[in-house]
Amino acid sequence: MQAEIITIGDELLIGQVVDTNSAWMAQQLNLVGIDVYQITSVSDQKQHILKSLSDAEQEVDIIIITGGLGPTNDDITKKTLCEFFNTTLVFNENTYQKIQSFFKSLNLKVTEINKAQAEIPANCEPITNNCGTAPGMWFEKNNKIFVSMPGVPFEMKQMMEESILPKLKNKFKLSAVCHKTILTQGIGESFLSEIIANWEKALPSYIKLAYLPSPGIVRLRMTAKGNDENTLLNEIKKQTEFLQQIIPDYIYGYDNDRLEAIVGKLLKNKNETIATAESCTGGYIAHLITSIPGSSVYFKGSVICYANEIKTKLLGVNKESIIANGAVSEEVVKQMALNIRNLFNVDYAIATSGVAGPDGGTENKPVGTTWIAIANKTDVFAKKFTFGENRERNIQRASITALNMLRKQIV
Amino acid sequence: MQAEIITIGDELLIGQVVDTNSAWMAQQLNLVGIDVYQITSVSDQKQHILKSLSDAEQEVDIIIITGGLGPTNDDITKKTLCEFFNTTLVFNENTYQKIQSFFKSLNLKVTEINKAQAEIPANCEPITNNCGTAPGMWFEKNNKIFVSMPGVPFEMKQMMEESILPKLKNKFKLSAVCHKTILTQGIGESFLSEIIANWEKALPSYIKLAYLPSPGIVRLRMTAKGNDENTLLNEIKKQTEFLQQIIPDYIYGYDNDRLEAIVGKLLKNKNETIATAESCTGGYIAHLITSIPGSSVYFKGSVICYANEIKTKLLGVNKESIIANGAVSEEVVKQMALNIRNLFNVDYAIATSGVAGPDGGTENKPVGTTWIAIANKTDVFAKKFTFGENRERNIQRASITALNMLRKQIV
Repeated sequence: MQAEIITIGDELLIGQVVDTNSAWMAQQLNLVGIDVYQITSVSDQKQHILKSLSDAEQEVDIIIITGGLGPTNDDITKKTLCEFFNTTLVFNENTYQKIQSFFKSLNLKVTEINKAQAEIPANCEPITNNCGTAPGMWFEKNNKIFVSMPGVPFEMKQMMEESILPKLKNKFKLSAVCHKTILTQGIGESFLSEIIANWEKALPSYIKLAYLPSPGIVRLRMTAKGNDENTLLNEIKKQTEFLQQIIPDYIYGYDNDRLEAIVGKLLKNKNETIATAESCTGGYIAHLITSIPGSSVYFKGSVICYANEIKTKLLGVNKESIIANGAVSEEVVKQMALNIRNLFNVDYAIATSGVAGPDGGTENKPVGTTWIAIANKTDVFAKKFTFGENRERNIQRASITALNMLRKQIV
Repeated sequence: MQAEIITIGDELLIGQVVDTNSAWMAQQLNLVGIDVYQITSVSDQKQHILKSLSDAEQEVDIIIITGGLGPTNDDITKKTLCEFFNTTLVFNENTYQKIQSFFKSLNLKVTEINKAQAEIPANCEPITNNCGTAPGMWFEKNNKIFVSMPGVPFEMKQMMEESILPKLKNKFKLSAVCHKTILTQGIGESFLSEIIANWEKALPSYIKLAYLPSPGIVRLRMTAKGNDENTLLNEIKKQTEFLQQIIPDYIYGYDNDRLEAIVGKLLKNKNETIATAESCTGGYIAHLITSIPGSSVYFKGSVICYANEIKTKLLGVNKESIIANGAVSEEVVKQMALNIRNLFNVDYAIATSGVAGPDGGTENKPVGTTWIAIANKTDVFAKKFTFGENRERNIQRASITALNMLRKQIV
């Protein structure tokens, strides 16, 4: 079963907006066993939209369209779909009631321009939009499906999840597809692939493996396709357990887990607290931790000690230690972790000190050199890393690495 | 003059990678006066690539292709282009030398598989790749241009900027295009459009205006097209000056300026320093400031005081003030700013305290309520904001707003 995604909007073709909708939709379609044949972005012009619809119809069974459903005159998708299906717009009372109640929930009155959004092509089935005013539209023609949705990401996502994907699964008897993503930290893609080479080779042919790297993290995604969902789920479970035995030290989570959320959950469950003392990461670890709702329960705060005088004055790092070893050293980063733990009266502390770059590197401590220390209730330990040349990625990798070192302490 | 962008790669169609290349290329092409007619993402399959090339050839003058140039077997763009142009691969000595020197710079020997990357279609002009091994390729056929580049973003960008865009400008006598982006902070899109409505209406017809909003910021982009570049530049300059007179309080920069870099430059020039005391922003302001290379010259550090006990113990905020007014209050945020300024011995300080959400809101202080204080050498002032429901956006908006309040103090 194949689909084409057509995204409509001049803003895509002038590069004003990056089309993130298509990748998300492609992922979701793949998850239910629909391959995406092509992604096409076209302008808000009738002839161009009509051509892309006819072209797609020749190639695939499912055509997913987003964009061009706004209430203003430059949005012409609806009229163009009428022309494509040789039909007309009709006022849909049910859709109008939904628009009315949407406006009511915002304490607003429906304007004429929004009332017109209840007009839909006569041959379509309207799809409820719980997050906005433009309804989605579901068309069937010669056993092919055409779906039109708004381009606003959260409106589109809600429609896909609540209506479109279930309807597609129901309409086509799709083969079962199961996914499992294993999240690893602390090992590069190529080293990882060497360690798990035998396991990878022995995977059954109906399971595909993808390596998805990002700074500090490699995600391994297994995709199994077949007829029986239970068989797939059991095999994926078995293979995940094999992998856990091969690389137990590198796995920190599964699927959509976020390291900062995992750490937060562990701390919350144990009723424990944390603080950070950050030099090279400049507050990014604190930002990751506090991006999680409810983090105030376990996160007390940080001292960001970019200047050495703050390291000594506020954190009580020994001046002589800095002079003797430099600020980027095991000695200093350990003192930072111990002292912030005591100062903030927390159970765990993270400390970082490194050369983020692009300047500040020396022969002994090139750009990327980073010391990370973790203090627990009784002890402190530190580890040295040599990341790369890029400041942004160094900050990200140091932060992710530090959070994972902490996680291993809490478990 | 119209172009189509064709991006090749299975990773795009399974949604593993968001196609950010296309938006960037579309922007660059627009900047030199080339409209993008369509963006098409296709799989690594010969027939599909061939079809997309023939389709594009019917519609546009310039076809820009990225992806599928890696050294492994799944990358088939080069062979497919040979078939499309009815030609064969030939070994290009000059290209091979460039690959050799690239490997030499990494202290590596050229492998057989990389040597094969010096084979290019006989009818193409190779385009030097200074950042990788796969050369770009420039084809001309019936006065139409086909360009093939690697999909790796920084390799593609380097080729576009150094070779492709200059060659396209040279090949087609393109009409002049000038752009100017005015960066505003502290006013929403709709209010801004009301204030500048008369100015916008009076713009000459050859200048188009686009509103580009992101959390806390609205960018206004003027695009002028015409025959004479000087006329356009003068008109854009004049219109920018008009705008400066209408909304002087909201403009903080131009084009690719970043607020954290502007603030950093101002501090550096005046040889002054800064620190932050962050509650609701959780270190995000410090992260933005330290994302700028060289920020250690003016940024001394921060105290992130998520817990009230840290506000009192480390920052010396009066306990009674917190009990009487709550932590999210003018009184507390002003104390935070003054005390961090004195503690860190800096010229300026930012302090934030707010309800980031999704929990913690009350009737008097709903989610989004945020106090921001700025201390300068002699004084402190604070302002209350009511942002929205979304935690991530609240943190971003509070941070951007705080940086802009600081900027106005330094100027």
